[in-house]
Amino acid sequence: MTPPHADGTWDALCAHWQTLSDLGGIGALLGWDQSTFLPAAAAEGRARQMALLSGIRHARMTDAEYGRLLDTAQARSDWTPVQARTLAVARRDFEEATRFPAAFVQAFSQHTGESYSAWVQARPQNDFARMVPYLDKTLDLSLQAAAYFPEFASPMDYFIDQSDEGMTAAVVDRVFAELRDALVPLVDAVAQAPAPRTDFLFRAYPVETQLRVGQDIARAYGYDVTRGRQDLTAHPFMTRLGDQDVRITTRVKERDVSEALYSTLHETGHALYEQGVAPELLGTPLGGGVSAGVHESQSRLWENLVGRSRAFWTAFFPTLRDAFPEQLADVTEDEMYAAVNAAQRSLIRTDADELTYNLHVITRYELERELLAGRLAVHDLADAWHAAYAANLGVRAPDDIDGVLQDVHWYGGGIGGAFQGYTLGNVLSAQFYAAAQRDLPGLESDLSRGDFAGLHGWLREHVYAPGGTYPPAELVERVTGEPMTVAPYLTYLRGKYGALYGVK
Amino acid sequence: MTPPHADGTWDALCAHWQTLSDLGGIGALLGWDQSTFLPAAAAEGRARQMALLSGIRHARMTDAEYGRLLDTAQARSDWTPVQARTLAVARRDFEEATRFPAAFVQAFSQHTGESYSAWVQARPQNDFARMVPYLDKTLDLSLQAAAYFPEFASPMDYFIDQSDEGMTAAVVDRVFAELRDALVPLVDAVAQAPAPRTDFLFRAYPVETQLRVGQDIARAYGYDVTRGRQDLTAHPFMTRLGDQDVRITTRVKERDVSEALYSTLHETGHALYEQGVAPELLGTPLGGGVSAGVHESQSRLWENLVGRSRAFWTAFFPTLRDAFPEQLADVTEDEMYAAVNAAQRSLIRTDADELTYNLHVITRYELERELLAGRLAVHDLADAWHAAYAANLGVRAPDDIDGVLQDVHWYGGGIGGAFQGYTLGNVLSAQFYAAAQRDLPGLESDLSRGDFAGLHGWLREHVYAPGGTYPPAELVERVTGEPMTVAPYLTYLRGKYGALYGVK
Repeated sequence: MTPPHADGTWDALCAHWQTLSDLGGIGALLGWDQSTFLPAAAAEGRARQMALLSGIRHARMTDAEYGRLLDTAQARSDWTPVQARTLAVARRDFEEATRFPAAFVQAFSQHTGESYSAWVQARPQNDFARMVPYLDKTLDLSLQAAAYFPEFASPMDYFIDQSDEGMTAAVVDRVFAELRDALVPLVDAVAQAPAPRTDFLFRAYPVETQLRVGQDIARAYGYDVTRGRQDLTAHPFMTRLGDQDVRITTRVKERDVSEALYSTLHETGHALYEQGVAPELLGTPLGGGVSAGVHESQSRLWENLVGRSRAFWTAFFPTLRDAFPEQLADVTEDEMYAAVNAAQRSLIRTDADELTYNLHVITRYELERELLAGRLAVHDLADAWHAAYAANLGVRAPDDIDGVLQDVHWYGGGIGGAFQGYTLGNVLSAQFYAAAQRDLPGLESDLSRGDFAGLHGWLREHVYAPGGTYPPAELVERVTGEPMTVAPYLTYLRGKYGALYGVK
Repeated sequence: MTPPHADGTWDALCAHWQTLSDLGGIGALLGWDQSTFLPAAAAEGRARQMALLSGIRHARMTDAEYGRLLDTAQARSDWTPVQARTLAVARRDFEEATRFPAAFVQAFSQHTGESYSAWVQARPQNDFARMVPYLDKTLDLSLQAAAYFPEFASPMDYFIDQSDEGMTAAVVDRVFAELRDALVPLVDAVAQAPAPRTDFLFRAYPVETQLRVGQDIARAYGYDVTRGRQDLTAHPFMTRLGDQDVRITTRVKERDVSEALYSTLHETGHALYEQGVAPELLGTPLGGGVSAGVHESQSRLWENLVGRSRAFWTAFFPTLRDAFPEQLADVTEDEMYAAVNAAQRSLIRTDADELTYNLHVITRYELERELLAGRLAVHDLADAWHAAYAANLGVRAPDDIDGVLQDVHWYGGGIGGAFQGYTLGNVLSAQFYAAAQRDLPGLESDLSRGDFAGLHGWLREHVYAPGGTYPPAELVERVTGEPMTVAPYLTYLRGKYGALYGVK
């Protein structure tokens, strides 16, 4: 990105962006350490350090001189396309950081803190009534937040655009409706078919060996450990601590061999995306994944499309049996493949399998949409939850603990935009993968030999290297030749579950 | 520390100090992670993050509004003694941060960076001549730095005061002269006596067991792992990452059981000091160890006075033998005690034993003093080094690699004040310990039962809790009843080595 002007505007912007990026990396380190190694008594001090750094970064993001630089730059029209896009994304971030009055941010943050503390107590007591006034205020504040961005057609459109730029509620509604109409009967059919054997997944698998095995696959996928590392946390995540520092975490259960394995493959997918961004974009507003949906598409692609495929288990089952000879002595490759793809209706989103997970997400998305549109009142939310689960998943929680109180999102943050990215990611994972299959005729054969280099290289070139260069919708069209579409995902699910469960 | 004024000056200062302390903790986290877990390729980005944060902290330290707050506060005379001392230390830090012009700091930093890179190449090539122009410039810049503080009688006085407030070259000269006069004949006598058996120290000791054993003793000493943790690094250190977050690191050699053990006990001593500072001082300019010498006195006290004592090995040898039954099958408690106290003349400071270490430090201190006084030219430094080693230690390095090129200090930083704290620490460790022995009649008996609570409690009350409340010299007098004196240290060394080597 050579500056077309010699007045220093572009260089000054690049320097400022690098500073913002570095401050973001420092904040990520504070968070990573908080989740991995922070001594117990240091939690309060760490929270203060994180708030301090967040304030410093916010001041730099909203700096008046920076705003003038952006104005100066955007008054010109002779930028390269990548420069113009960089400026547009920077402007978007600047508006997001500057439009909210400080008092509003402070009030919202304080309220969600109080709401979270109340939820921690109310959930085990099954006391949704206690949360109603909190959620009423959260809804009100969320609507106020959206009102600072009147250019969006609705609050839900604003929130969706926050994480999935350019996406609208109308598109999500259509995609999710199509998906639900297809999934509900498929889940019904699977639920009536005989369940595969899964007992062996829950034998005792030594933790150290599980970790080594997972890291071996992450490296085989292409995760570069000279630019990352893996540690243990209560909740797995991926985080970028610097231009060349993309770390992942996992959790291990001795008596569930699939827990650490698939959480590692999931976070590795996120990390491959971040590690694959073109070096010249790092430290700029384009130097990371472009949206929540595209990011999730990569975690899901490597976790599910690859990691739960028949070809993967052809390559990998002998390795796993070498690592755990006693635990897997009576297990065949086919049984392992079926077990890691076992599907059943359940109450808890975070425990849900690949097939039913989307129905959990769609349920939440629709409830958010109705709340924001004023068509659903908070005091009716618990009942609406049960009704939606009955309709979408055919199950009903015995209480609100495993119902409307189960997820932290609405209680520790705002209402709107928190969930749809998960399912958009699933849809896109299959669409990207289908495009890769077209371009890489030997793909299945490669995977069955444990050779992931072709797929990784293809994704790096088409999806990862551009970073934020193209808005998500444009990226999808460039990579797959068509707009986001549900068809490849449904084909994938029907193919896999049809064969595994003898349904269609 | 209740403010005597209601105008908010004190509260504003406390808030600012907490921010400076929190920024310091964030910087410490960046450094800790750099030494422990940073991926290899992330080094350059991390250096940039550290420079960025350092600049942010410097801006806060030199903030004009902060300077006015200090002026306002110091214009009053009705502060409590602790408040007045806090303001004095804050003023000292403020002057240190503000007097140097930014261009000077930048030039010095750039020069030491280049000098360090040159040293990394010159040392293995035994090429001191190459370093002469670098050191000439370093000396010049060091003298310029001292010239910004004309209130000190000499450059050496300024540098000593930097790390050991209130100490002067005249005092250090006198103490070191007395020490050398006593140590040289003692080292001579030990060198001529039969050496103890040490072969068993270098057997194969599994790394994990060594780590566990070291951490058990650290906890027994009183190290609070809810406010700290231990990790592995190439060079062991202690670091404060937050008010309640004081971490240590160690290194382990499979074939040297004393390496990890004594590095752990050394860093634990530093950590006990930091963890013992009174809670109400944390986040203020008094919220840490008061000087390099007093800090080193605590690492040395727990490493040597306690950890290499006969009583310690009475308590601890059975534990060690349980941990390493085969390695220690043919070793007695007395042999272990003698082995960890083996002394011999050597060329390398960082490998030196407790007895001869001070002669390495005194040598460097005297060379620094002569350079800064203009009585020694840089191009004569290598020869002066050999001559001083011959006089002080009776050895001569075969080259400059193990001579004047051996330590990083002068090549990666300034000249002046880098070394004397180590030996002041040794002197003070014995003086503090002698005071503790007077106050705690059952001390040796406690130690021989592995009970460190009495000693830890005494040190916490007298040395740790005050933090920076008293200048070092005042602290020493308050705790021991007299000014810094070499006598207890010489008594200690003569007693121990006299008995072990049959000399006097």
